[in-house]
Amino acid sequence: MSNGINQVQTLKGFRDFVGEPARKRLWLIEKIRSIFDFFGFEPLETPALEYESLLMGKYGAEADKLIYGFEDRGGRRVALRYDQTIPSARIIAQYRNELVFPYKRYQIQPVWRADKPQKGRYREFMQCDADIIGISTPLADAEILAVFYNIFKAIGIDSIKININDRETLISSIKSTGVAENQVFSVIQTIDKLDKIGKDGVIAELETKVASSGAANKIVDVVLSAKMPEKLDKIIESATKLGVPANVFVFNPTLARGLDYYTGMIFEGMVPEYTVGSVGGGGRYDNLINDLVGFNSPAVGFALGFDRTLEAAEKLGKIPQFENSAQVLVTVFSPGLKDISLNVARELRAKNISTEVFVDENKKLDGQLKYANKKNIPYVVIIGPEEAAKNVVQLKNMKTGEKDMLPLSKLIDKFK
Amino acid sequence: MSNGINQVQTLKGFRDFVGEPARKRLWLIEKIRSIFDFFGFEPLETPALEYESLLMGKYGAEADKLIYGFEDRGGRRVALRYDQTIPSARIIAQYRNELVFPYKRYQIQPVWRADKPQKGRYREFMQCDADIIGISTPLADAEILAVFYNIFKAIGIDSIKININDRETLISSIKSTGVAENQVFSVIQTIDKLDKIGKDGVIAELETKVASSGAANKIVDVVLSAKMPEKLDKIIESATKLGVPANVFVFNPTLARGLDYYTGMIFEGMVPEYTVGSVGGGGRYDNLINDLVGFNSPAVGFALGFDRTLEAAEKLGKIPQFENSAQVLVTVFSPGLKDISLNVARELRAKNISTEVFVDENKKLDGQLKYANKKNIPYVVIIGPEEAAKNVVQLKNMKTGEKDMLPLSKLIDKFK
Repeated sequence: MSNGINQVQTLKGFRDFVGEPARKRLWLIEKIRSIFDFFGFEPLETPALEYESLLMGKYGAEADKLIYGFEDRGGRRVALRYDQTIPSARIIAQYRNELVFPYKRYQIQPVWRADKPQKGRYREFMQCDADIIGISTPLADAEILAVFYNIFKAIGIDSIKININDRETLISSIKSTGVAENQVFSVIQTIDKLDKIGKDGVIAELETKVASSGAANKIVDVVLSAKMPEKLDKIIESATKLGVPANVFVFNPTLARGLDYYTGMIFEGMVPEYTVGSVGGGGRYDNLINDLVGFNSPAVGFALGFDRTLEAAEKLGKIPQFENSAQVLVTVFSPGLKDISLNVARELRAKNISTEVFVDENKKLDGQLKYANKKNIPYVVIIGPEEAAKNVVQLKNMKTGEKDMLPLSKLIDKFK
Repeated sequence: MSNGINQVQTLKGFRDFVGEPARKRLWLIEKIRSIFDFFGFEPLETPALEYESLLMGKYGAEADKLIYGFEDRGGRRVALRYDQTIPSARIIAQYRNELVFPYKRYQIQPVWRADKPQKGRYREFMQCDADIIGISTPLADAEILAVFYNIFKAIGIDSIKININDRETLISSIKSTGVAENQVFSVIQTIDKLDKIGKDGVIAELETKVASSGAANKIVDVVLSAKMPEKLDKIIESATKLGVPANVFVFNPTLARGLDYYTGMIFEGMVPEYTVGSVGGGGRYDNLINDLVGFNSPAVGFALGFDRTLEAAEKLGKIPQFENSAQVLVTVFSPGLKDISLNVARELRAKNISTEVFVDENKKLDGQLKYANKKNIPYVVIIGPEEAAKNVVQLKNMKTGEKDMLPLSKLIDKFK
């Protein structure tokens, strides 16, 4: 065995989650999953690796450079999952005869992008998508909005706002100003920067794209003055019937979304108290699956920004403190008293009380208490010679320092 | 966008989990995780990719060939996680000043091996490990056995048996027959095959390794007649105090475990009704972490065979049927009656009843009922013109065909 002392570091752009941070992530995944399940969406897992040819050329030339592709030992070109849309499209084409349509699926898995590491951007991150595939109704759009809203409600982020727009309206507004068909998406990409670079910035950038400054001004004015289209109104109405408060929705005629494949409703979630950026978004994409895998399948869905949602939940104090930590540590006073402690641990566990037992009977009690403190275990049970003689246990509240002597049966009641 | 129709297939040796199979996996992961948490183990997540140099040369030359290694776009040699032991060893060395010892960690993540695909062997599979690191007490061994047992108890596999042995005893038995130090592990690897090739097969193989047939016979006889060492007896005694029934343990003096790094107790879980093989195993490895990352840290732990445990649970009928599927589908009779259906769906959801709403108001009711059937949704709610006029809903039990007309408030009671 070689000694690997010098290679002991996390790969650049990647993250370890040790203890508490891992717990928080699991807590959020559980919240998200419970809502997906609750709304009748089905879980989907696809492999980390796909044939590279499936992924390449699907996201544009810039994205292709970010795909982790390589040759495997069998000479195949393979690539790590870059998003969950392409693998899902493959699933839909491959399992079309087994799936029940409309196919409501969710996927919560990591994806990998060979991006330049920077604050808040990592090469491995969790994606959480939900989509309704095979149907093109406003009701499906409304249900997707309800799922999105309910995730934040479940987390406790009631302040969530959904900025919403319609890609078709946006396109026709742009076209109505005389922009040529082949320039429309380029204009959309510029308008998408409105939040970042402001109105003047957008106009300046448009001028380089659509020649005259008058034209650039006109585009922005026309887009800004667009009214909520009737279609969007219907979607929002159904979403409110499904329980999303009407004031959650903010019609934003300049909302553009960077991806070119949207064909109808588009939306982004914003948490007012969390200003880093959108916590997720999505929309309708009726042609993408056909373009990808040659199977005609309209679809609507969203991807949650997992890291940002977790940050927002943290900022708003929505993540519980002792989630998953044991409720009590049963200490072992001495080798001779070990079995009594094991009995107590067994009884607590049998009553469904999450229990740690200290696994070293030779460690001084003081060290065992320190262990409980460091691990944020709220209660400690001590059975020394005195307690053993009286057939009681000592319960110590690690926060208040309060101590209690009580028989085992009473101890169990304490935790119920 | 290129059209990827011909690449629409799952990569060889990999698996998709669509709907029900994914649900079963999530169900098992949740069971396992809940026991790990309950016993006070902390979750750990490490990246899918590590520096290749961390992994290479750690598992032996054969294993090195199975590592998915490649050069990333920054010219670094990287590799996909091959197991969770090496990444954990890295974590222990890297975070030694922050971790609380004894460090009880668990890790549930996929690993990748470029193995020859065959029945039951895949290139991507889930590993579930729990370990107590930094301590070398029999009590830690006992706690690990208790965790292992309780996972199967939680699944409902009460028939689980734990074959147990002590690597030191095995080594001294072998040495006592005159086998040279440098041949001991080779002999262990042969004895490990006893279940597969039988006593005669083992003796035949040993003859090729230790020269005389008398010597081979003697090794097998001495190993078979070994008595349970006192140390193991103590461990089992503590485990029974922690609630593991004594008859779960089967002392097996020939249990060898193929890996060379074990230094004390070794064990394997067997489900009598499931004969494919062990459902997991582990043991004490006091030198491995030091060998790997130059940080002295005794340890004990196990890895669960995730796919086999799932198969065993399936075989024994322990996987629930409708786990995570919606309890009820609210159909939409017609565009004009859509809003009433949405109201009902909202009310059911508000009462914590997992509800699907059919997202196409133009689909005939018959098609909506078929959808419920295919998705195994047990109940369907119908609100047609008649029901709407009477202010009631129709509840249909999809299994029995039984129908009920009742007001919304009663409907909600039905599901409570």
